[in-house]
Amino acid sequence: MREHAVAVVAGDGIGLEVVPAARQVLDRVAEIHGGFRLTYREFPWSCRYYLEHGAMMPEDGLETLRPFDAIFLGAVGFPGVPDHVSLWGLLLPIRREFRQYVNLRPIKLLRGIASPLRDRGPEEIDFLCVRENNEGEYSNMGGRLYRGTPQELAVQNTVFTRFGVERILHYAFRLARERGRIKRVTAATKSNGINYTMPFWDEVFEEVATQYPDVEHDRFHVDALAARFVTDPAHFGVVVASNLFGDILTDLGAAIAGSIGVAPSANLNPEGTYPSMFEPVHGSAPDIAGRGVANPIAQVWSGAMMLDHLGYPEAHGLIVGAIERALLDGIRTRDLGGAAGTVEMTQAILDRLEG
Amino acid sequence: MREHAVAVVAGDGIGLEVVPAARQVLDRVAEIHGGFRLTYREFPWSCRYYLEHGAMMPEDGLETLRPFDAIFLGAVGFPGVPDHVSLWGLLLPIRREFRQYVNLRPIKLLRGIASPLRDRGPEEIDFLCVRENNEGEYSNMGGRLYRGTPQELAVQNTVFTRFGVERILHYAFRLARERGRIKRVTAATKSNGINYTMPFWDEVFEEVATQYPDVEHDRFHVDALAARFVTDPAHFGVVVASNLFGDILTDLGAAIAGSIGVAPSANLNPEGTYPSMFEPVHGSAPDIAGRGVANPIAQVWSGAMMLDHLGYPEAHGLIVGAIERALLDGIRTRDLGGAAGTVEMTQAILDRLEG
Ligand SMILES: CC(C)[C@H](C(=O)O)[C@@H](O)C(=O)O
Ligand SMILES: CC(C)[C@H](C(=O)O)[C@@H](O)C(=O)O
Repeated sequence: MREHAVAVVAGDGIGLEVVPAARQVLDRVAEIHGGFRLTYREFPWSCRYYLEHGAMMPEDGLETLRPFDAIFLGAVGFPGVPDHVSLWGLLLPIRREFRQYVNLRPIKLLRGIASPLRDRGPEEIDFLCVRENNEGEYSNMGGRLYRGTPQELAVQNTVFTRFGVERILHYAFRLARERGRIKRVTAATKSNGINYTMPFWDEVFEEVATQYPDVEHDRFHVDALAARFVTDPAHFGVVVASNLFGDILTDLGAAIAGSIGVAPSANLNPEGTYPSMFEPVHGSAPDIAGRGVANPIAQVWSGAMMLDHLGYPEAHGLIVGAIERALLDGIRTRDLGGAAGTVEMTQAILDRLEG
Repeated sequence: MREHAVAVVAGDGIGLEVVPAARQVLDRVAEIHGGFRLTYREFPWSCRYYLEHGAMMPEDGLETLRPFDAIFLGAVGFPGVPDHVSLWGLLLPIRREFRQYVNLRPIKLLRGIASPLRDRGPEEIDFLCVRENNEGEYSNMGGRLYRGTPQELAVQNTVFTRFGVERILHYAFRLARERGRIKRVTAATKSNGINYTMPFWDEVFEEVATQYPDVEHDRFHVDALAARFVTDPAHFGVVVASNLFGDILTDLGAAIAGSIGVAPSANLNPEGTYPSMFEPVHGSAPDIAGRGVANPIAQVWSGAMMLDHLGYPEAHGLIVGAIERALLDGIRTRDLGGAAGTVEMTQAILDRLEG
């Protein structure tokens, strides 16, 4: 029996509702599986914590998290607490300091969900997005001059390194080789307008591609690629994109797959030097928090990705199968046009775990 | 009888097919209208021109264009000619040097076109995108270090000025007030990740908004906004966005409105100090060029926007009405699921101009 230590940061808003729901599912799956157990330690780090302590997490927060096997995060963010506090004080430092340079986000239309795209079924919307998660447009470098005057200007630096670009591209090609429904890597670029960093990205992409002759590759400008998510989603196997482009494309991907309430993500440090982090694509959704209506699926599915990462792909399959059966049986939350609450939706998944 | 001098740059690929088609429509509308006439001067500036002369246009190209009342552009780009030549040698300098700081792009589902979004009709997809067209992510500032080595890095600077941000926001608010189907301006931001320039953009947005108390305003992160184009397009009146965000959102907008082959754009210098330029959102489409199958609608509609800009809104209405009637009568190009070629589609529009 293997044991895995999981740091749980439920965070704010609906994070507090969907994280406990997901843990129920994870624990039940561990029981069924029999080969592993999760032990949790909960951290109250959040905007509430910030309002009391003046920081999102203690100064040694990252050190505290470091020995864990994984981090299971809900969502952070609270009206009134600025993003540079809530996100740059917790979420983004974890992604960055723990070298979680891969943000893996499946774009998969689950059986039992209707896509907003006319005539598109689960066979046509099923690919993986690999988002660069450590550098690029989120470099946090820049500044402002002549603040508040007519001469004011602001600069933001996008920084890409060969080191950073090569590793994310290799990850994408390996993933396509091993897991792609179609063995094709599609890169997002914008080298026609963003004329220093994106041509560099393109060059490295073509170089890395030569090392994977068994995997197809192509490139689209991000504007055309976004359009193609709508007009031809079946084209994609693995999509690889910069931090910002990946951010935009995966929210769009969540929309074509039916709801942002369903979309999971994994922030991976593939080498395992640091813990990886699993979190839904959605945020803390203060508008619906505390009302018991949040869709737990994104959090549950993120938990399934955590189990996959810990070495239990069959547990991942069990969970996704149970989610699909619950949806096919018509149990759906409000974001999916149903009436089920968080508890009901979670129970429906639990009931279908045994297959 | 007013005369307007139009510089015509058909460019490459399908530009050579759709520009003449659009001119037929413009000339016929001028006849019907009776109050104005267009005189054209054609410039062969293009990638073909580059291959012969080593530049996309002569050194005094911009000076030559400057006295014109408008520029009517097809598309530039040719396989084998790098973008930094084709785009940075013609399209982008015109946008920039002629202070065409507004890129206006209607996202409008025409009657007779089916949106790829399930159950969305022309009433629900009908808004205006205002894209900042002179600064931001397309600043052309940055560089590369340690080229070709493992230490290589590339930097791109996004630069926003108060001057540039204020003027585009004022344009957007005035447009919403005067023309918005819904009097609301929605701004694209990403201040949670892009933490210098986008908070600046947000601050200026809120300041400018106070001067338009009769116009609603809201803001979304660009990831959520892209998703919302798919899940709730009816929300929007005017969307205002940075150069890059506007680029991505308008291609996505063209996709939800049925086809990139339809989407028009206007690069405006609202003060009229310099000529404005009118061009389709699509590119030169080398894959289908020379086969007579290109959809002329985007070019024709861009021409209609030119007439609107020159002071003839009723001519604009006449053209858009004729396009819609042709589509409703089932005459559609291949990108719209029909079989009509460029000539047939154009003729169908011509035939319906008298209303
Ligand atoms: C060709 C390219 C530089 C251009 C842009 O990104 O502005 C195009 O995509 C557009 O939208 O007009
Ligand atoms: C909250 C925000 C900084 C974050 C991002 O842009 O990375 C979010 O949108 C996401 O996609 O995880």
